[in-house]
Order: sequence, then structure tokens, then C-alpha cells
Amino acid sequence: MRIVVTNCNTTQEMTEEIVRGARAAAGPGTTVTALTPAWGPESAEGWLDSYLSAAAVLDTLRTYDEPYDAVVMAGFGEHGREGARELVDVPVVDITEAAAHFACLLGRRYGVVTTLERSCGQIEDSLETAGVGRNCAAVVGTGLGVLDLGDESRTEEAFVAAAERARDAGAEVLVLGCAGMTGLQRTVGEKLGLPVVDGVSAAVKLAESLVTLGLTTSRAGSYAKPLPKRRTWGPPPGEAPPPR
Amino acid sequence: MRIVVTNCNTTQEMTEEIVRGARAAAGPGTTVTALTPAWGPESAEGWLDSYLSAAAVLDTLRTYDEPYDAVVMAGFGEHGREGARELVDVPVVDITEAAAHFACLLGRRYGVVTTLERSCGQIEDSLETAGVGRNCAAVVGTGLGVLDLGDESRTEEAFVAAAERARDAGAEVLVLGCAGMTGLQRTVGEKLGLPVVDGVSAAVKLAESLVTLGLTTSRAGSYAKPLPKRRTWGPPPGEAPPPR
Amino acid sequence: MRIVVTNCNTTQEMTEEIVRGARAAAGPGTTVTALTPAWGPESAEGWLDSYLSAAAVLDTLRTYDEPYDAVVMAGFGEHGREGARELVDVPVVDITEAAAHFACLLGRRYGVVTTLERSCGQIEDSLETAGVGRNCAAVVGTGLGVLDLGDESRTEEAFVAAAERARDAGAEVLVLGCAGMTGLQRTVGEKLGLPVVDGVSAAVKLAESLVTLGLTTSRAGSYAKPLPKRRTWGPPPGEAPPPR
Amino acid sequence: MRIVVTNCNTTQEMTEEIVRGARAAAGPGTTVTALTPAWGPESAEGWLDSYLSAAAVLDTLRTYDEPYDAVVMAGFGEHGREGARELVDVPVVDITEAAAHFACLLGRRYGVVTTLERSCGQIEDSLETAGVGRNCAAVVGTGLGVLDLGDESRTEEAFVAAAERARDAGAEVLVLGCAGMTGLQRTVGEKLGLPVVDGVSAAVKLAESLVTLGLTTSRAGSYAKPLPKRRTWGPPPGEAPPPR
Amino acid sequence: MRIVVTNCNTTQEMTEEIVRGARAAAGPGTTVTALTPAWGPESAEGWLDSYLSAAAVLDTLRTYDEPYDAVVMAGFGEHGREGARELVDVPVVDITEAAAHFACLLGRRYGVVTTLERSCGQIEDSLETAGVGRNCAAVVGTGLGVLDLGDESRTEEAFVAAAERARDAGAEVLVLGCAGMTGLQRTVGEKLGLPVVDGVSAAVKLAESLVTLGLTTSRAGSYAKPLPKRRTWGPPPGEAPPPR
Amino acid sequence: MRIVVTNCNTTQEMTEEIVRGARAAAGPGTTVTALTPAWGPESAEGWLDSYLSAAAVLDTLRTYDEPYDAVVMAGFGEHGREGARELVDVPVVDITEAAAHFACLLGRRYGVVTTLERSCGQIEDSLETAGVGRNCAAVVGTGLGVLDLGDESRTEEAFVAAAERARDAGAEVLVLGCAGMTGLQRTVGEKLGLPVVDGVSAAVKLAESLVTLGLTTSRAGSYAKPLPKRRTWGPPPGEAPPPR
Repeated sequence: MRIVVTNCNTTQEMTEEIVRGARAAAGPGTTVTALTPAWGPESAEGWLDSYLSAAAVLDTLRTYDEPYDAVVMAGFGEHGREGARELVDVPVVDITEAAAHFACLLGRRYGVVTTLERSCGQIEDSLETAGVGRNCAAVVGTGLGVLDLGDESRTEEAFVAAAERARDAGAEVLVLGCAGMTGLQRTVGEKLGLPVVDGVSAAVKLAESLVTLGLTTSRAGSYAKPLPKRRTWGPPPGEAPPPR
Repeated sequence: MRIVVTNCNTTQEMTEEIVRGARAAAGPGTTVTALTPAWGPESAEGWLDSYLSAAAVLDTLRTYDEPYDAVVMAGFGEHGREGARELVDVPVVDITEAAAHFACLLGRRYGVVTTLERSCGQIEDSLETAGVGRNCAAVVGTGLGVLDLGDESRTEEAFVAAAERARDAGAEVLVLGCAGMTGLQRTVGEKLGLPVVDGVSAAVKLAESLVTLGLTTSRAGSYAKPLPKRRTWGPPPGEAPPPR
Repeated sequence: MRIVVTNCNTTQEMTEEIVRGARAAAGPGTTVTALTPAWGPESAEGWLDSYLSAAAVLDTLRTYDEPYDAVVMAGFGEHGREGARELVDVPVVDITEAAAHFACLLGRRYGVVTTLERSCGQIEDSLETAGVGRNCAAVVGTGLGVLDLGDESRTEEAFVAAAERARDAGAEVLVLGCAGMTGLQRTVGEKLGLPVVDGVSAAVKLAESLVTLGLTTSRAGSYAKPLPKRRTWGPPPGEAPPPR
Repeated sequence: MRIVVTNCNTTQEMTEEIVRGARAAAGPGTTVTALTPAWGPESAEGWLDSYLSAAAVLDTLRTYDEPYDAVVMAGFGEHGREGARELVDVPVVDITEAAAHFACLLGRRYGVVTTLERSCGQIEDSLETAGVGRNCAAVVGTGLGVLDLGDESRTEEAFVAAAERARDAGAEVLVLGCAGMTGLQRTVGEKLGLPVVDGVSAAVKLAESLVTLGLTTSRAGSYAKPLPKRRTWGPPPGEAPPPR
Repeated sequence: MRIVVTNCNTTQEMTEEIVRGARAAAGPGTTVTALTPAWGPESAEGWLDSYLSAAAVLDTLRTYDEPYDAVVMAGFGEHGREGARELVDVPVVDITEAAAHFACLLGRRYGVVTTLERSCGQIEDSLETAGVGRNCAAVVGTGLGVLDLGDESRTEEAFVAAAERARDAGAEVLVLGCAGMTGLQRTVGEKLGLPVVDGVSAAVKLAESLVTLGLTTSRAGSYAKPLPKRRTWGPPPGEAPPPR
Repeated sequence: MRIVVTNCNTTQEMTEEIVRGARAAAGPGTTVTALTPAWGPESAEGWLDSYLSAAAVLDTLRTYDEPYDAVVMAGFGEHGREGARELVDVPVVDITEAAAHFACLLGRRYGVVTTLERSCGQIEDSLETAGVGRNCAAVVGTGLGVLDLGDESRTEEAFVAAAERARDAGAEVLVLGCAGMTGLQRTVGEKLGLPVVDGVSAAVKLAESLVTLGLTTSRAGSYAKPLPKRRTWGPPPGEAPPPR
């Protein structure tokens, strides 16, 4: 089985970290290919980044020619999953919803610990529309930017502090709220005495499961195939806008 | 990996059907053992049956001595899952929630087609408390009893009729609302042009996934271990009550 | 009028305390009979206990042969009420919902103070499905076990501390969250300056009211009579499982 | 025990009908006194009437000098109950919420059948804020005005037709959605095979219950006593506005 | 365009303050006329006052004979708006909902800072039924009465303290929760670094907008014209009740 | 005052139609400038189009150099509004939420009539997260594509048929669910006897109002300014992907 994992940003190092996590979770017969968008934000932190990322990731999938059996979208709280469901004929699993689905099975309420506080609202909306927001007790920020997660001990400390706020709000299970946190589940889980769910791993297992069971996105209603029409993906050549 | 699947009723034939479905979904390294409660209802249809079933299934798990890695509870809409989560140290997945988790990944709204109309309310409550009720468009009964599902063509016809009502209510994905419907997903899925999720298969894949990722139920809060105390499982000998 | 009150556990002393509270609330023409299940947990604290209790209480009602006009189920937050509604032809009132119904009449938001924190989730679910969860501001635990409630001054102190947390969350009325707390309403009510509702008393008055008005459970839909079928209430003789 | 029942309109005949229903429900030791507002609408049908009625009913209570133990507000879906809770020191029960509280005990979902369609929204809001809206499946109008209810056979026919719509929407119990429908519960209940709850009877029983248990409105928060201040109840003399 | 602004109380000074705020917000072609009810409470603080105010305001509108194009109801959290929508043929905008509509456009969550804590519940209900409660993070009281707002520095200080509680609860935008706070938005907004919405200004702009676009209240369903019938607005002459 | 209106697609004719509607609604001192994205879909119908559109519209705003006072986003149900709120320092009003805000003021429940059924889910999500979904009774499709709206009589007929379904679901006010329907409000409003709200007009009035009152997006929390970082808007030159 071939799973394509899309990073939501253009940072190759993060793609590599994601793919390591995905491969660690994947079953023996599963091949994981990671795609880094050729455009978009270097990290997705906020709504502007998220919408830019969504289009870039969809463009990445649209122009990827190799065959595959499922898509994992590795941008926690980022937009785009419904568009990918329209676009491709295989199951699409977003790491945000994936982590929440698993967390619901492990405790009565779960909490999400993410990077910057500004991302909390997006994550809440994403969980809500995915249909798994009801049992979310809290989404809490660590104050760390996506590209600051490299400093392991600082990240761990900030995660534990934020996790305690989530626990006080009723969380019995924690979710890593950023693809770049993959790997943290083991170290912080022990410290906190709570299960910690990583969305990348969860999404890989869900994607494998759907493929194994022969299930894919419904074409009835919301996720019908995109209509054939003229679409332009990116500005016309020679109109490179000034950076901002 | 060893998965224990518990039937919710005392009908051995149904256990066998369930185990066939579970094994078909299980990965190569997974052993599936099915348990039939030694007591309880011959089929669970309604709240009385469901509460009797819950205690019987918990008793079955409590007295099962072999080692195992996960539990799948195969009673659609039946009670007991939170008790099992307290009782055992391995992940517990209920087929009701499992089917809904998968259905949420396949469409924006899903519907459940079950047996008798009287069971619809229980299923709605079960989905709601599991945290996956938001995107459920409808729970619809076929009017068939659990033990009437053997007549395949009648079942299929009743299922399709009920499924159309769910679709009219907005369902883009269907869920088989009874463990005894396992196997129906292929035939009716094609007729309806919609993905059909079977809870037994879904739960097996979720259980395997949790075990693979080393995740199990949180002991913080709701699902702490049962307190040591005096519990009697069933009436004292010689006090066999009159049947009713 | 004859009201049957079912304790949810096998502890005779608690049945006696409950019946005292029930009789104190009952009108002059009402006879209160209390039933102690012959099996089940000695106290219900958590989901496992609650499901075991539900089956034992239903078995108790099923095998009780005397005539009666209404049932009061005296297990705060415990399962089983819908099963009893199917089983008997008279009104069934659960003390959880009863307390909430009264509390809604006395203030805009109410809070529940219960025993162990692990029971809070069950109570929340019970209120929600009973249709009276909307105006519940908080369910708060005292940290005391059901069988620890005998120490009056410790119980009172713990109750007041927990009640203050509920008040801070917006509760204007308090509910005693355990049948074993009956009697506490007067002492703590004064200290707190808030009305305190006891579920046993409330349920007795509601049961009397329904009987007086000639109202009983609807048989249309959810609470239809149980279907005739083979049900076994407890393990076969000679298969007494090892205690756990 | 002395219960004061307030009609929501100025029609004396309706007050008499209400008081008959209230007395039929009241216990042996209960005296029921009915008050007809000296001003307000002759029938409350819509928001304008309802707000006028609320002030008139509060004025009626404010200027009623006899002692009493509880208030029943007999205007289905009409405003004012929270104001009465502030005003008087005894329990206040509104027939809208009372009927819903009882209906929740009798089935998993209930429906309300009322007079004009224009009143449905008010009733929905009233149930919602009273905290008992969750299990309401539908509020349905009969198309009959409040003062048209005298024609019994037409009323019965219209009620049954509307009730069937409520049942199709999931109602297992019905509520009479107008104080002027009191008495209808018996005749239509049999025809429909569903329990039918009359709010006046329900409110009388709830009021009696609260008084018996020594419970009254919380003064903490929402329903604190009205602040002493200058209030004018009605226009200054000689400024009688033209009728409209 | 002629906008009528109704004060919710009989205090002429407050009417003048409101009209100053309304005129400051109004466009060049808009004439603002303010009406002070001839009866009602001198300030609306709680449910009793609010229902009395609603009737008095409706009576004021009912007997106002000049032509006008829209109504702004300037009582934050007070009742009556639906009645006014039935009564008049022009758009009606309540300052409570108006402020919330604007606040929703300026941040993901908003908070309301009002006078006495006892008013918070009313405001919550008003926002909920107006359809704009979802993104309200908190309604917080300052502890100041309506007629105490004249002391500017005390009001400002109390407002800022309450606003900080709202911000901690997630509010990104603040709403002035009393018509008498009009003018405060500029001073406190700077201190807090948050946008502050004044309901009077917002309602004036919404009223102007609806008139400009030729939109007015729907007569289908809830807000149909009041039925012609006998209504008495205030007690009969000579029956002046004792003040209370 | 200068308002920038962004079309969500690349079809210049639609931009012109939108700008006509916007100008008709704008006050005398308001200048309306319409922007057509240089890239994106020729019409936005579904999630893929919507995410592509969101990035293109944000890019359009990002690279627009003229000064302006507010932004109106003219894509009904399309994504991007939160990103624009981060990006620009002036108020941003989306026509979806704008129409709903106005509709809430005109009736107790509103309905949306849109183009293709596939768009209904997106619109529901957009209303929900904007905080104005509660009073939406239905979102109904006409079956017409965005670029099919030119045929006026067919559009009108399809609109009326869909509007009747919305009315049956409880809508008392209708919303034009596509920027391309601007102008239809007058003709269909009369036929239906219901107010019909056009989102473009509503958004222009809201934008003008916010500017007049000196209100703009909160920078606290969700809509903080985008962080400075490397972002690429569109694929690198020479990597033009094959169309699909």
C-alpha cells in the first residue's frame, strides 16, 4: 500500500521529520512518500498561512503523478482536507481529525497542545467541522512557533506546562497539536501519566485501515468530484508580486 | 496481536458471524477470539436487553483468563464500553463508535441503518456520548429484529429502503447499525452508490492501530481502574427467579 | 399509593437511609417499599459498577411480585432508568433527573456535588440524555467514596468546599449527587445560602405526581415493552466466577 | 397549602377553566386561588401580547395581598416567569416548563401541540431557556386561536392532526400547548395512544412538591430580589392612549 | 431617514445620553428621536424590571404617532424586541443583538461587560435567542448599577477589571453591556488594546442599513402583525396599586 | 470611504455584476473598487475551488497597493475571511456572514438559497464558524451552477422552488446564497412575500458602518498580524503544472 503524506509547509526538514514518524507507524506492506509543497508558507501559523498552505497542498496533490492508495495531510489544524477529498479518488485523512478520533477512544475528554495561541481557534473549528469537537476539553498553546520545536528540552517543558492546563480543563488524553511535535508522545506521555496521541501516526493507521477495508470518500453530496472548469494555480508568469 | 471480540448476546451463531467479519478485517499477525456471554439476552433489542447485555459482557471479560491485546465490543448501540475501559488494561473499541469514526472520514454527514426502530434512540445516545454524534444525519430502523437478519434478500431490501431515508436526511455515508449485518456492506454499497461502513471491521482496525501505536485507555479521571470492593455478578445460587 | 424505591447497590444500610429520606418526602397516602438488589456492587462508583448495578436493579424489579404504582431509582448517575421504563407499566423516576428537574425550577443554573471525581462524567451524560443538562453549570466531586459518607462532619465540610466550586462556575442551586447524601440538604443549604435539592425526595414527589395525574411511560418508540425472548439473568449455576 | 394560579390574559372564562383544571390536580390540603389580570390582552397570541401579559401578570402578583405558598403561571409559552421568581418569596412554576419536565420523564422525546403557528417560536425559546428544550422533538400549531378552543370537537380534531405531525417528528409524549386546552388530555390521549401532559396539572403538582420539600427560588445570582427603586406600573392617569 | 430610539427606562437623563450616542453614530441624512417611556422602571436591572420595561416600551411605540423609518431599542439585554417587530412596520434593531453582530465581525470570540451580575443571565439568553450567542466567550458584570455609571472614573476602572476577565475567557472584542455606557468605548478600548463595540451606535448603523436596502421584518411566521383584539395597557383608573 | 470588493473567481463579468450591486448599496461618500483575482477558479463551486479561491483572493489583497478603508469579500460560502482579517488593517466583511447578520434582524429563522447542492455544506460550516448559524433553518440548492445564473427566468424559477423548501423548513427570511444572484432580491421577494437579503449589499453596509464607527479587527488572539516569514504565492516559474 502506498500512502502519500503531504507536509503543509515548504520546510523540507519538517517533511523529513513527518515522514520518519509516518514510517514508524506504517505497517510492513506500506510505502510512505512525503510531498513538500513547491510553494506556500515555510510554516503554517495562522489563517493566512493556512489558506495559502491549503492551495499549495492541493496543487501538490493535483500535480503528483505517481499512483497511491491514500493521502495523509500532515498540517495540524490547517485547511484543505475537504478539497483533497474532492480531488483524489482515494481516502484522505487529516492528522487533526485522526488524532481526535483516536483520542476519543482513549478517554472521555481530550485536550490538544499546540504551538502558538493564535492557532487554537483554527484547531477548534477544524475539530468541530470534522465532527469530533464535542469531547475536546481544551486547545492550549505552548507559545512556541512551529520552527522553534527543534529545541527539544524547551519544547518538552512548554508542552508539559500547557498539558497541565488541558488536564485541569478535563482532558484525560492529550493530542500533539503540530506535525512537528511527532516523537514527543513517548517522553511527555510518561511525565504526564496520560496517553498522548500523535496525529501523523494516527492518520497513517486510519489511512491503512480504510484502504484495507476498501473504503473511500463518498461522492454523494459534499465531496463530489470537482467540476471540469478553468482553474489557474498561481499568478501568471511575469507577474511575480512583491514579497510581503 | 490478540483481539478479543465480545458478542453482546448469547446467540452462538451470531458470534460466529461476527468473528468471520472480524477475521476478514484483521491483519496477518492478528488472532481474533470471540466470546459469547454465558448469560444475558439472546439478542439485544432495547434498553432492558442492553443493560442486561452490558453486565453479561463485562462479566465475560472479567472472567476471561487468556492474555489479549485489545477488546472489540460487538453490540451496535449497546451499553458497556466505558465499564470495559475501566476493567481491562488494553484498548477497548466499541463497534458503534468505530463505525462512526470511519464514517466521519468518508463524508460530511453519515447515517445509521439499524434493526428495530426502538433501538434508534439508544444508538443516538451512544454516538453522542462517544463524541461522534455531530455529523450523524439520521439513525433509521429497518423494522427487522436482530434474529431476522438471516433472510438475506429481505434484509437487503429493508436496508436499502431505510438507507434511502437516511440519504434524504443528508447522509453521504452509511453505517451498518447491527453486528449481525456484517457482510452486507458490499452488496448494498453498490446498489446505493454510497460507502457503507461495518462497525466490526472498523473496530478491528482501530484496535489493531491502537495496539500498534502503544496507546491504551487513560487512567486519569473517567476510566480509572475499578475500586476494589465486594461485587456479586448474578443472583445467589438457589434464588433462580421466575423467567419473564 | 405504593412506591418502590430501588437502591443501586447491595448495602442494606444505604437502602435504609434512602427509605428514610423517601418516607420523609412522601405524602400521607403513600407507602414506600425499598428494594436492595440481591447482587451487584456494594457501592456504585464508576462505569463498571454502574452497569453491573443496572442489571441487578432491573433483575430486582423483574422479580418483585408485589403490586406498586411507581418506581424510584435511587442511584445518582447510575444506569438503568430506560430499561426500567420498558420493563414496568408504571412511571419510573430516576433520582438524577428528578433532582435536576427541581433544580431547574429554582435557579437559572444548577450544580451537582457528588462523591468521587470519577463519577462526574457519568452524571453529566445522565443529565444530558435525560434532557436536563443544559442548565447544569458544573458537576463537582468531593473526593469521598460512597461508603465514606457516614462521617457527617467530614462529608459536610467536603460538600461545602465542592459546592463553592460549583457556585463559582455559576450554580445558583445545588443538587446532592449521591443517594447516600440524603439529609445533608438542610445543614449545607443554610451554610451556603443556596437551595439544595435531594434527588430521593424529588423523585418521590415526581412519582406521586405522575401517579396522581394518571400519567405513565409512553409505549410509542423508545420505551416499548421488552420483546418476549430468552434472557438469562446471571451466570449458570456452578459457573461461579472467581471474585475480582 | 395555598397556590395562586395566574391566568395570562383578562378573559375570566379562561381563568375559570384553568382553576377547574388546577383544582382537579391539587392534593386534598391545597387551596387554589386564580387571579385574572386587571389589564393586558384578552388572549396571549404572539410576542406583543406576551410581553404585555408578562407585565400585567407581574402587576397582579405584586398587588395581591393575601398570603400564599406558591405561584403557578398559567400562560403556555408566555413571558414573565423569571420576573415572578425575583418578585415573590415562594416557588414559581410556569406551566410551559412544568409540562416539559413531566414529559421528559415519560418518553425520550416529546412534542408540543399549541394554538396558532405564530406561537411556536416563543414556546421553543421558553423551553430552551428553561433548560428542557433538548428532548423536544417538535412544537406544532393547530391553527386555532386561544379563544376558539371552546368548540370541543373542532379543537380535538385539530389537535389530533397536529399531534400526528409531532409524532412523525419523533415525539413519544405530547404536551398541551395552551392553558385553555386543559381537559383535552384524556380524550386525545386515548385516540393517539400517547401520554398527554397538561401544563396546569403538572405545575400544580410541582408547586405542591417544592412547598412540601421546603424548597424555593435561589436568591443567588439571577433571581435576586428586585432592587428598591421607582417603578410605575401603567401609564399616568389621564394619559389613556388610544386603543390599537 | 427618521430613527426612533426607545430608552428602556423612565430616566430622562439616560435618554439624553443615549440620544447623544445615537446622533453621533447616525449618518448626515438621519434624524434621531428618542422616546422615554411614560411608565416602567427608572432603570432596568433584572427580570422584573425588564418585563415591566418591555410592556412600557411597547406602549410607548404603540402610542407614538409621528412617522419614522426604523426603531432602535436601547435597553441592553432587555426584553421586548420581538413584540416591537410584530407591532411596527419598519425594521427594529435591539442594541444587544446589534453589538453582538458587529463584535462577531471583529474577532473570533467576544465578551460583554455589563452592570450588575444579576443581568448576565438575561443578556446570555437575549444573545442566544437572537442567534448570535455562539461566539460569546463571556458576559461579565462590573457590580455597578445602571444609575451609578455617572461616576466616570469608577466606571472605567470597573469596566477594565471586568474586561480582563472576559479577555481571559477568550474574548477578542468587547461589547458595552449597557446603553448608559455609551461613550466609554474610546477610553477603555485604548487601555485594553481591544475593539469595544457600543450597542447604540451599532444599532443605529444597522437600522440605517436596513432602511437603505429596503428591508424590513418578515411577516411570515413569528413576527406576523398582532391580531386585532381587546388589550388594556395598564391598570384601570382608580385602581392605582400601592407602590412596591 | 473606499471599499475594496473582492470577487472569489476569475470571471470578470461576475466582478462587474458584483460591483454594480455593491455600488447600488453604497452610501454617497463611498467609492467601491472591485478586484478580480489574477488566478484561481473561474467559478467557485465546492471545496477545491474554495480553497484555491481563498489563496488567490488573499494574494490579490496582498498585492493591491492602493489605500482603502474596508474589504468586502464577495464569495458566498467561500473560504478566506479569517486570513484577510489577519492580513489587512481595515475591517473585513464576508458576504456570507453579512447576509446572515441582516437576516437574523428580520425574522426568527432564515434560509439560504444557493447554486449547487454540493455547496450547501460549505455554507453551513461558514455560517456556523461566523457565529450566526443558530437561526439558520435550511441551506437549499437550486441545482444551478454559478455561471448558469445568467438565464434570469430559469434562475428565478429555480430560486422560488428552492425558497419554498427553505420556508417549509421554517425560514421567515431568505438569503441569496451566491454573489451572482445579486439583483434577484427584488423580483423573488415579492413573489415569495418574504424579505430577501443580498450578501453583497449587506456587506457593503456593514463595512461602511464599521469604518464610520472607527472599528476594526481585533489583533488580540485569532487575528493577530501574520508573522514575518518566507511565503511563496504560487508555483515557481517554469514549473507550470499540467492543467487538471
